[in-house]
Amino acid sequence: MIRVEQSTNLKAKPPQGELGFGKYFTDHMFMLDYEASQGWHDARIVPYQPLTLDPAAKVFHYGQTIFEGLKAYHGSDGRVRLFRPEANIARMNRSNVRMSVPELDSELFLAALERLIEVDAAWIPSEPGTSLYIRPFVIATQALLGVAPSEQYQFAIIMSPVGAYYPEGINPVRIFVESEHVRASVGGVGEAKTAGNYAATFMSQQTAKESGYTQVMWLDSAQHRYIEEVGSMNVFFCIDGKVCTPALSGSILAGVTRSSIIQLLESWGIEVLERAITIEEVYEAGRAGLLEESFGTGTAAVVSPIGELCWRGEQLLIGDGRTGALSKRLYDTLTGIQYGTVEDRFGWMRETGLQGIIRSDIME
Amino acid sequence: MIRVEQSTNLKAKPPQGELGFGKYFTDHMFMLDYEASQGWHDARIVPYQPLTLDPAAKVFHYGQTIFEGLKAYHGSDGRVRLFRPEANIARMNRSNVRMSVPELDSELFLAALERLIEVDAAWIPSEPGTSLYIRPFVIATQALLGVAPSEQYQFAIIMSPVGAYYPEGINPVRIFVESEHVRASVGGVGEAKTAGNYAATFMSQQTAKESGYTQVMWLDSAQHRYIEEVGSMNVFFCIDGKVCTPALSGSILAGVTRSSIIQLLESWGIEVLERAITIEEVYEAGRAGLLEESFGTGTAAVVSPIGELCWRGEQLLIGDGRTGALSKRLYDTLTGIQYGTVEDRFGWMRETGLQGIIRSDIME
Ligand SMILES: Cc1ncc(COP(=O)(O)O)c(C=O)c1O
Ligand SMILES: Cc1ncc(COP(=O)(O)O)c(C=O)c1O
Repeated sequence: MIRVEQSTNLKAKPPQGELGFGKYFTDHMFMLDYEASQGWHDARIVPYQPLTLDPAAKVFHYGQTIFEGLKAYHGSDGRVRLFRPEANIARMNRSNVRMSVPELDSELFLAALERLIEVDAAWIPSEPGTSLYIRPFVIATQALLGVAPSEQYQFAIIMSPVGAYYPEGINPVRIFVESEHVRASVGGVGEAKTAGNYAATFMSQQTAKESGYTQVMWLDSAQHRYIEEVGSMNVFFCIDGKVCTPALSGSILAGVTRSSIIQLLESWGIEVLERAITIEEVYEAGRAGLLEESFGTGTAAVVSPIGELCWRGEQLLIGDGRTGALSKRLYDTLTGIQYGTVEDRFGWMRETGLQGIIRSDIME
Repeated sequence: MIRVEQSTNLKAKPPQGELGFGKYFTDHMFMLDYEASQGWHDARIVPYQPLTLDPAAKVFHYGQTIFEGLKAYHGSDGRVRLFRPEANIARMNRSNVRMSVPELDSELFLAALERLIEVDAAWIPSEPGTSLYIRPFVIATQALLGVAPSEQYQFAIIMSPVGAYYPEGINPVRIFVESEHVRASVGGVGEAKTAGNYAATFMSQQTAKESGYTQVMWLDSAQHRYIEEVGSMNVFFCIDGKVCTPALSGSILAGVTRSSIIQLLESWGIEVLERAITIEEVYEAGRAGLLEESFGTGTAAVVSPIGELCWRGEQLLIGDGRTGALSKRLYDTLTGIQYGTVEDRFGWMRETGLQGIIRSDIME
């Protein structure tokens, strides 16, 4: 089914301590083409290579493109596992539907992930906190300027060994609450993982960075009151002994980490309320000393404690700006499951059958 | 300043009767690169050719891209003129700012347009209603998956000879009013001409098409009441002797045709109210027999009369479904200015100094 063309020109692998995020790419990539008359076809693994596209390709003009992000982990037992790939595949197909892109065959998608990881197994880093980040994406390739869905697409999977998100241990971040610009709105494409949603955040993100904040917290587009997400993460609050997170209203991404965190908390007997949360409520709870913790969740950081918010110039310290106990416990448990040191009672980890390579010289 | 590499392999030109829109491209394209350390550099006209990009290029993942659309016309006097290129250049730079893309030098941009048209002058069609559609666009090319603005960009201009929009004369269209999905919201990127805004409209557009409507009319994201735009056009209504159009609220594109139509109307002593317009108001006016005309405006169609709306299942016929007198007068005047048969009292047409080629064999 999947043809493999081995690269004859393997790249030097970067030192594990210098991986960063999405800077280095493995030797191979997966590709699959779509043509209206043929459907998806020509599944292949080829040497990592540039894409050659007509300048009129629709992706450049009308932004018809979708991506996903998931990770493979080199377990402490040396076995390589994927975290919930089925969830990412299902979400990609939901995004495809929203963006008028033909759906992908889930089984072929999963087979492609596994085969590609096998071919580039030597690229899976082994140092604590590192992982292999996997980026599937689809782009509209038809060279036609009519404003309508493309009749040709290319689906690709590229992979990047990534460094530890917290090289010096889990650490709270400072978040800027955006009260003017918005990321998405109900009825729009905010719940699809499509490229345009990200470029739309750059301006606010730059402003936040310049003022010393790591990320932007987004509010709803209609009233600028309801909390949506934080950068590329979903967000949770612990208020007066209760955990809550914005409901999936249609404008936010249904994070795979978010759903895992909810399941974990519920397995510990902690109820999670998925509901509308206003920024006023969070500030009131904070001022009253009832805002115990807040954290973001996402594939990149897993759990990212929030130490401080700034909304309309007013700063709010959360939990003295330190990592809360629940955030820490969630981070330790979820990363433990991912690296195989904590029992996976949820069936989240998918065995690849691969034995990771631990020799440090492979990556240095 | 602008280096020119002539194509040695000129393409066959399509028959003028089969041009369509954005299907055929000329022999050359303009290119300009950006590198954080160098700024915009290496302005060049090269043979029309594919773009070769790393699969990790930010345009594919985060949609940082902007485009413009304008036309050159072969006048009835044989002279080739551009319609308000300065307005498109200014809008492109406003879009760039919103999308965190470095601004372009306006003079170089204009020089590039003029030089490229000169090189491909033989591609400017001469039949009535045809024109040379010009598509400048910028894409983020840096191969890095961090969610932040690119440090490398490519700017390009491609050109396509396009057919008459109304081969059988100006004709009203049927419009589907979208009451669930939204295109953009205030605080978002709706007023930037960025790719993601267009993919976001495909699903609604497909639904509309399947029900026999040509385009979608968008309502505001907060209340689904205020009229925004129609497809890739701004929209006007003539209600009880007054002309109105949605104000530039921040979520709609500031159309160059829109601004020209407003100036034309005002020069005729007809006041145009730029204000908030609800769909209820339009329906009420329609039911009361006070909705005289409605039309869309944009570079592609210039003026597109609206003959019928469908909102929440209720159909509304406008002006008996026929082209209104004002729509017709605006269309005739503006296209007359563009083709040089009506005096250009506004200084909109920019002479290129080129004499168009009228020999029909050139294009067939
Ligand atoms: C906008 C947005 N929200 C939330 C998330 C978190 O989703 P996940 O947990 O699946 O990584 C992501 C990242 O994927 C994202 O891009
Ligand atoms: C969303 C949108 N609105 C309106 C317009 C009309 O703008 P212009 O008159 O400049 O072509 C366009 C087309 O450019 C558009 O894409």
